[in-house]
Amino acid sequence: MTEKIVVLTGGVGGAKLVLGLCQVMPADQVVAIVNTGDDFEHLGLNISPDIDTLLYTLALKADREKGWGRADESWNFMAALRSLGGEDWFQLGDGDLVLHILRTAQLRAGHALSTVTAQFAAAWNIGVSVLPMSDDPVATIVTTDEGDLAFQRYFVERRCMPQVSAIRFEGAGMARAAPGVLEAITDPATSAIVIAPSNPYLSIDPILSVPGISDALRNSVAPVVAVSPIVGGKAVKGPTAKLMAELGQSVSLSTIARHYEGLIDGLLIDSGDDGSALGVASAATDIMMNSLTDRARVARATLALAQTLR
Amino acid sequence: MTEKIVVLTGGVGGAKLVLGLCQVMPADQVVAIVNTGDDFEHLGLNISPDIDTLLYTLALKADREKGWGRADESWNFMAALRSLGGEDWFQLGDGDLVLHILRTAQLRAGHALSTVTAQFAAAWNIGVSVLPMSDDPVATIVTTDEGDLAFQRYFVERRCMPQVSAIRFEGAGMARAAPGVLEAITDPATSAIVIAPSNPYLSIDPILSVPGISDALRNSVAPVVAVSPIVGGKAVKGPTAKLMAELGQSVSLSTIARHYEGLIDGLLIDSGDDGSALGVASAATDIMMNSLTDRARVARATLALAQTLR
Repeated sequence: MTEKIVVLTGGVGGAKLVLGLCQVMPADQVVAIVNTGDDFEHLGLNISPDIDTLLYTLALKADREKGWGRADESWNFMAALRSLGGEDWFQLGDGDLVLHILRTAQLRAGHALSTVTAQFAAAWNIGVSVLPMSDDPVATIVTTDEGDLAFQRYFVERRCMPQVSAIRFEGAGMARAAPGVLEAITDPATSAIVIAPSNPYLSIDPILSVPGISDALRNSVAPVVAVSPIVGGKAVKGPTAKLMAELGQSVSLSTIARHYEGLIDGLLIDSGDDGSALGVASAATDIMMNSLTDRARVARATLALAQTLR
Repeated sequence: MTEKIVVLTGGVGGAKLVLGLCQVMPADQVVAIVNTGDDFEHLGLNISPDIDTLLYTLALKADREKGWGRADESWNFMAALRSLGGEDWFQLGDGDLVLHILRTAQLRAGHALSTVTAQFAAAWNIGVSVLPMSDDPVATIVTTDEGDLAFQRYFVERRCMPQVSAIRFEGAGMARAAPGVLEAITDPATSAIVIAPSNPYLSIDPILSVPGISDALRNSVAPVVAVSPIVGGKAVKGPTAKLMAELGQSVSLSTIARHYEGLIDGLLIDSGDDGSALGVASAATDIMMNSLTDRARVARATLALAQTLR
């Protein structure tokens, strides 16, 4: 039986870990379950930012500096858009538009997001199974001091400036896990389930909000291991630390351990951090993933931790 | 009463004449009624090639060599599209995509093509009233030795190679002239109605197929003047000559005069051609429009011919 590794992931940080896993094991043994709570419609196009980040990263087409979007991108669309007074707060690269346009056309023709995503992955020879968490719409809505904001409005347009008091996932109650998601988690061949070092509140919680996914994790035979998004009391990137503070949480490993309590069997932490009082098994490595070597190291350490928990 | 000039036009050739008119009179006194029989949906986008050619030409954004599309265009979208195995027979420039994406979003939101077109024209400070012939879908279908082909399939994908036996305009029977179209033709302020040197069968006939438009031309007080698309027994450009032969017509001025018989009061022809036996009033100038000066000259000659027929 060929082992499988299942990863729950958001965009940039998670994509790095998935790419790391592909360096230490065959890509076709990796299943990525991707947050779609950030998905939105913009200029009539269906945009799935985290799925696209996975696709670009795994096809080695990602812009390495930004972590999202395409390398060697051009921006003539945006310039023309501005000349017509169009909404320009969300950056759409010229090459990037293809995924959005083709996805929109396929979804309107009645195809599922998971089908379209699989087509893109196949066209780019991506071995990893890239699965949206759900084919049904789930929208991450952030309650802030400026009112309720859809995720991209909060994250991109308002650059995470508003104070967050609550987060909810609209449509989650009615959403079904996409084909393959629950099957991958419960597959006896699955030897580890990994929660990527993505934002727990904005990237992982939406996945866990889809009925059946948390239960499948809790009931899984395979160990569930999270990679900490917190290093030395700071968030590795993005708005995680600011958000934790606003939600009344300390920016610490113990907050992460508590957040995933009952769900994870182990937490991979940074070598500089203390994992002794987390109430969950842990292992440590240099957790920052700047280079490809870093990614492989974190992937290896994640798998090693899972191995000890089997 | 401010005079108005109304032009019935297809894409490239007609756009040149409209631009010429704007050099010899105020742009806001020109009304362009544009063929939409070439409009089609491609990759889920609503594309209006002739309207866009008018917009680019009048906003001085057109690629001067090709005559269509934007100057200084980039093609990263097409490259990315090919990497995903998408249909790449229709060229979509990176900047050009904006018109298609915004138009599609607006049409889906229930706005009329004429409204969307007017918004684009306003954003680019285009003085000419650019009116689609109809807000309702009309599709030019070409019957060929390869079967029925939608216009763009015939024109772009098959490069006019198939033998044409008939042309029809699907939906024309049900279509209504767009707001402003019949009003412009019948407006007492309209001092001339011009049929641009566009392809009579593929660009002008679709406009005339919309109920009410031919009748309005026939009943108009203003003289109707066509600019010949035939010079020296050859078509100025495009598939006009090949098509005329396939439809059993001689490639000649008399074919043009006969085609528009009862509709036009005058025909502007090239100085090298003989207008004596056409059965309609004519005037001559050097009809080729390569430079801006050429365009102004043809525009002036067209207006002068109309003036004699008033």
